[in-house]
Amino acid sequence: MFPYVPNLALAALDPGEVTRLLVALGVLLVAARVLGELARKLNQPSVLGELAAGVLLGPALLGRVLPDAQAWLFPTEGPTKVVLEGIRLLAVTLFLLVAGLEVDFSRVLKQGRAASSVGILGIAVPFAIGFAVAWRFPELVGWSGQVPRGTHALFFATALSISALPVIAKTLIDLHLYRSDFGMIVIASAIFNDLVGWMVFAVILGMVGAQGSPDALLGVVASIIAFTILILTVGRWAIHRTLPWVQAHTSWPSGVLVFAIALALFGGALTEKAGLHAIFGAFLTGVALGDSSHLRERTRTTIREFVSSFFAPLFFAGIGVGIDFLANFDLLLCTVVMLVACIGKIGGAALGARLAGMVPRESWAIGFAMNARGSMEIVLGLTALKYAIIDERMFVALVVMALLTSVMSGPFIQRVLGRPRPRRFARLLSSKAFVDRIAGPDRRGAVRELSRALATASGLDAGRIEEAVWAREKLGTTGIGDGIAIPHARIAGLAAPLIAFGVAPQGIDFDAADGKHARLVFLILTPAEQPGAQLEILADISRTLKDPDVRTKLVEVTNWTELLAALRADVDAR
Amino acid sequence: MFPYVPNLALAALDPGEVTRLLVALGVLLVAARVLGELARKLNQPSVLGELAAGVLLGPALLGRVLPDAQAWLFPTEGPTKVVLEGIRLLAVTLFLLVAGLEVDFSRVLKQGRAASSVGILGIAVPFAIGFAVAWRFPELVGWSGQVPRGTHALFFATALSISALPVIAKTLIDLHLYRSDFGMIVIASAIFNDLVGWMVFAVILGMVGAQGSPDALLGVVASIIAFTILILTVGRWAIHRTLPWVQAHTSWPSGVLVFAIALALFGGALTEKAGLHAIFGAFLTGVALGDSSHLRERTRTTIREFVSSFFAPLFFAGIGVGIDFLANFDLLLCTVVMLVACIGKIGGAALGARLAGMVPRESWAIGFAMNARGSMEIVLGLTALKYAIIDERMFVALVVMALLTSVMSGPFIQRVLGRPRPRRFARLLSSKAFVDRIAGPDRRGAVRELSRALATASGLDAGRIEEAVWAREKLGTTGIGDGIAIPHARIAGLAAPLIAFGVAPQGIDFDAADGKHARLVFLILTPAEQPGAQLEILADISRTLKDPDVRTKLVEVTNWTELLAALRADVDAR
Repeated sequence: MFPYVPNLALAALDPGEVTRLLVALGVLLVAARVLGELARKLNQPSVLGELAAGVLLGPALLGRVLPDAQAWLFPTEGPTKVVLEGIRLLAVTLFLLVAGLEVDFSRVLKQGRAASSVGILGIAVPFAIGFAVAWRFPELVGWSGQVPRGTHALFFATALSISALPVIAKTLIDLHLYRSDFGMIVIASAIFNDLVGWMVFAVILGMVGAQGSPDALLGVVASIIAFTILILTVGRWAIHRTLPWVQAHTSWPSGVLVFAIALALFGGALTEKAGLHAIFGAFLTGVALGDSSHLRERTRTTIREFVSSFFAPLFFAGIGVGIDFLANFDLLLCTVVMLVACIGKIGGAALGARLAGMVPRESWAIGFAMNARGSMEIVLGLTALKYAIIDERMFVALVVMALLTSVMSGPFIQRVLGRPRPRRFARLLSSKAFVDRIAGPDRRGAVRELSRALATASGLDAGRIEEAVWAREKLGTTGIGDGIAIPHARIAGLAAPLIAFGVAPQGIDFDAADGKHARLVFLILTPAEQPGAQLEILADISRTLKDPDVRTKLVEVTNWTELLAALRADVDAR
Repeated sequence: MFPYVPNLALAALDPGEVTRLLVALGVLLVAARVLGELARKLNQPSVLGELAAGVLLGPALLGRVLPDAQAWLFPTEGPTKVVLEGIRLLAVTLFLLVAGLEVDFSRVLKQGRAASSVGILGIAVPFAIGFAVAWRFPELVGWSGQVPRGTHALFFATALSISALPVIAKTLIDLHLYRSDFGMIVIASAIFNDLVGWMVFAVILGMVGAQGSPDALLGVVASIIAFTILILTVGRWAIHRTLPWVQAHTSWPSGVLVFAIALALFGGALTEKAGLHAIFGAFLTGVALGDSSHLRERTRTTIREFVSSFFAPLFFAGIGVGIDFLANFDLLLCTVVMLVACIGKIGGAALGARLAGMVPRESWAIGFAMNARGSMEIVLGLTALKYAIIDERMFVALVVMALLTSVMSGPFIQRVLGRPRPRRFARLLSSKAFVDRIAGPDRRGAVRELSRALATASGLDAGRIEEAVWAREKLGTTGIGDGIAIPHARIAGLAAPLIAFGVAPQGIDFDAADGKHARLVFLILTPAEQPGAQLEILADISRTLKDPDVRTKLVEVTNWTELLAALRADVDAR
């Protein structure tokens, strides 16, 4: 429409490309976020949803349903394609920076026998099994003859040996196991795996580059070792020295964010220049930065949030856009890869744990924990794909394996260890059992109103609830102060705990020790058969409502959405 | 080095381009940040430093000193150039989103007579003067005949009328005037200016597109009005409805961040498609989002931080990389633009304020406040440059004018209103007057040690300091509790306040009311001629040290850098 005069070295994108680029980025981001959130709601790693978004938008689905729209949105050549690829490069570099930041490599040294045993066997066994299978039956695991058989087997072995520290950490945190001895051993072993795995992978990339020449290969191995040592000694020292200065003298959070990002970019450029791929340098830089005791927890969180909000989803969703996941799905290959991967990793890690003297139950749990491959596997596979070490079929098989092992991990650990998920009262609230304004002028009235709401929501008899709660109430007040009251009762035969919540802005006298009238009233029913449930819920409520801001917000809520928002804000803040 | 086999639609960037791109991004970011921080230290808007970084790295400087390096780093064609331009497009879109977010357009309505008078005259007078000058003397203000004389004059008039809300807000916050009546009037007027200015600019872009055809121009004007109304009514309503849901149901902060970014991208794509440039849509979307009462302050801050840490510096530094600021610097043009801009804007806004009944002193201050053009002018100018409405010389003149007016603004308001900058004790500390471990076992010893340190730092006589402070100390304790002591004295003839700070981990008895021994000791000298200084500094110290975390950190500091870091952390947290 415009008489577009690119009178400058400023305008390689015409309005059509600008429109397309903005739409493509917006669609990728939204789809990745929506499916990522969905995955989280289902208690799965968000990378699962982000990848699925790419598959939806790529040739696999959108390309089949609306081929023209797909071709317009994600063209296979031209400026939009180049820009998207550039942004994806930036994204994967920053993602590896964050992965490196999570590596606390002094911890590996501290964990002693169990960690080293799990760490070494957890990498050696899957590596050996993977290599043996790939060497003996190369076609079965996707060798297409593009690279030497040995290189392919080495890559396959490495791909099976690597773990996904972020996914493992997330799973342990969800299960409240992160700070336990069990968690420490798993994390230390996973860190060890990551470091060794990435170094071996760099060697493989070097082998491809060296094209079989022993001298060139030696040079590559030497430069990998040199880089690793350089970044983890001189680089680490320089970062440790510079970081306090950056944190002290630059504006928060831009200064430290740019410091970290620039380090990753330069580290990546350095290794890319040396023929080792940028992600290796970014990862090592992350390790060096994460190891500095001067790195504040808040800085680490800020960098992680920055990357995982924007760049990581763009990267993972971008993968599916370039590859047809349906056409390249090979069930036999997927099954073989999955089987070999699980047997090697679970077996190796569990064996290591047993040898270190852990009981069988815990050893299996460690095996399942270490088995999660998550996003690391996908980054590794994508790079191997770019360098033609593997083909699309094998890449899809690796992605499927990475996702399945990650998804399996949590539930299996839980089952093996017999640990239920911790109860959070917010998850037990329901919109039907929410009374936005309690009318009842007194304690009895409030209990009655909430009992009725809970009856509507649960199908129980309102009278029965009220009676049980009131019987407890007569034994002593449930006004716990700070304007909160928690009338409650145990009911036999209940399937799960139930909570009704009501707001009484005018305040209701629950006879609390601090004399304050209750403005927030929770009515709680727990199964008589679960003696611990009541205490757990009460503790969670008082922990959440300790913050005066949360209490103020809760008193002000007028509908269910605002209630969720108010509680959510609290969950975030921790 | 690698047998690079792009076997996929995944690899348009070869290792050489990858290296270059990572280095280019890293260099741009670091240079922009370093110079941006420097600008902030000098109390100037950071955009000044970010632009300077681009000028340094562009043809103007690096291109003259190391032409090969400059040409390698920022090539004028090829994938790196396309990717950088794509990232810059993303950056300016997000920057305009943030600019829109700052617009609280219900405030314009509330400010009544003064704001409307300042707002209207503050835009009408510079517009009229600008148009008259550009129409009468087109060559003097850089008309090169590429567009009709009227279009150029209209653009020139618009460029002089626009204000820079973010810079103005920042200046007012720095001067503690943001929440005052004065501040409210200025902000409301600036918002009005921004909205009207951007609409007029969109019309001008439309005129270029319509190429003089009245029908096409009418269409453009109609679509501008339609878009504005659509986004500010339906769009605003939809956002207001959706936002609480997003804040409640998605993970923080990714969910809401992606929501805002995607809105800006789609808004931008919509207006770009309609021929109005993407930034207009992004800006309007920002206004609609910022207006929702459901937008939490924390969300707003997160979006702003995200954009200003990474994208804004890349955008502004990127400008200098594409344009030779030295070759295109035209002193006459710069002077004319600067003069016409200042006379019109200061005069118009001050006149408006006078007509609304404000006193002359305040009216002039409002004129200087509204005169800041800041980064908005630069975005406007760059777009005009891309559409060939102006040439590089005029663009450079606009940038110079934008920066000078922004830099002038604060000091002039301060001078006119006679308001000094608030004192912060952290700014008065110096490494020489810092005693990492006070040895002195008692009060007297501590005062002596700190007096000596302060003498070394300031050149005053140590005995004189000690005597003055001790005389005050005898009148009553300066131990203010919580392990803090603030011995102090007023000294005649001092140019500015002086502070020595020492840590005594063992604790020194300052006879505080709470019985705690002092572990943090500040020795403060203020000029006898500035009676308010002492109280201001004492208040600032006790406000800063109210937080127990800060006190703990301060006791643990062992060197000057850690001290700065500890105090900085506190400043951040607020």
